[in-house]
Amino acid sequence: MSRVPAATVSRLVTYFRILSDLEAQGVEKTSSDDLAVVAGVSAFQVRKDLAYFGRFGTRGTGYKVPTLLRRIRGILGLTRTWNVAIMGAGRLGQALADFPKFGEHGFVLKAGFDADPAKVGMRIGAAEVYGLDALAQKIQELEIDMAFLTVPTAAAQPAVDLLVEAGIRGILNFVPSVITVPAHVFVEPVDFLAGVKRLAFYIQKMSPEEGTP
Amino acid sequence: MSRVPAATVSRLVTYFRILSDLEAQGVEKTSSDDLAVVAGVSAFQVRKDLAYFGRFGTRGTGYKVPTLLRRIRGILGLTRTWNVAIMGAGRLGQALADFPKFGEHGFVLKAGFDADPAKVGMRIGAAEVYGLDALAQKIQELEIDMAFLTVPTAAAQPAVDLLVEAGIRGILNFVPSVITVPAHVFVEPVDFLAGVKRLAFYIQKMSPEEGTP
Repeated sequence: MSRVPAATVSRLVTYFRILSDLEAQGVEKTSSDDLAVVAGVSAFQVRKDLAYFGRFGTRGTGYKVPTLLRRIRGILGLTRTWNVAIMGAGRLGQALADFPKFGEHGFVLKAGFDADPAKVGMRIGAAEVYGLDALAQKIQELEIDMAFLTVPTAAAQPAVDLLVEAGIRGILNFVPSVITVPAHVFVEPVDFLAGVKRLAFYIQKMSPEEGTP
Repeated sequence: MSRVPAATVSRLVTYFRILSDLEAQGVEKTSSDDLAVVAGVSAFQVRKDLAYFGRFGTRGTGYKVPTLLRRIRGILGLTRTWNVAIMGAGRLGQALADFPKFGEHGFVLKAGFDADPAKVGMRIGAAEVYGLDALAQKIQELEIDMAFLTVPTAAAQPAVDLLVEAGIRGILNFVPSVITVPAHVFVEPVDFLAGVKRLAFYIQKMSPEEGTP
């Protein structure tokens, strides 16, 4: 599984969510055709995506939902907990710290970091906010795996450099700018704009004054 | 274009972003093969997605980047401005109001709404915060098209009902719960969790103690 395309990883997350819903509904069996319809891809694509990780199901009989769910959970690394830091304890960082779903999925907030001395010692969610001078030590001590980046745009790259130097392996980037990291560090941008663009499409499409492209 | 799959709309937004990058780099021509590689789908899927909206390019010669970009911009409804309200002027709502990229893409914040009287009269970004009693009138008066939902989870459905009754056509849902709307209203959930799950995958995959699925 050395060369898994990024789009396959995204779709695995989608399949995982669909399978979780099916399990919650008590559905026991599914197929690449079923998953394909809900995920909006071809059944061939579903089978190709899964094939990166071994053999799943038996041709013609589909997949057992709990088995496939358990295997994808393992592939995604969601059988363990992940220690998270929030870099930037401003409004967005504070709002994310209170987001209940992260904890339910094994992502545990361990620390906040902020350049502003007035924020040091404050709590965000269940964690304490530390200054940047304590960052390297706290990331080691609290065994932090990943960071949510919620600093002002101008502070993004210096903040990332500090995190990388301290050993952070993954960054969820809420800052709307491109950041540079070495090859062993992963960045996932959170793109609010994609959602509003989809809304614009649907609203325009349904409008009486709809224009043709 | 009456039955465009949701996944096609998502991919159109992706193609739009890729084409914008190509244009910024001065690239003048592209192909379904090129787009497919960057978007992580098959070239057949790219052509199928575009075919919902008419004919694009000529077989064998690819697409002109500016032309395809202009047409997708039109399809997505990004040639006009969209008036936005933020429902819930708490920390997340305030943080979104200051997000500079929305305005650059034609999404203009016109109002905030909050149930808390202490927040009424406050400003978020360039807009004023109104109470829920003024919501219906302000949505009409300011010609608001869509709302970002950033209220506490327990307040989500009542807030949505108010917005729908006032004529809102699209909701970008930041609340981690499922909301119910009539068929003429569109909801786009913003899923922070998908990004952190992808990070977990990449970090686990690169770890020395990597387990096999």
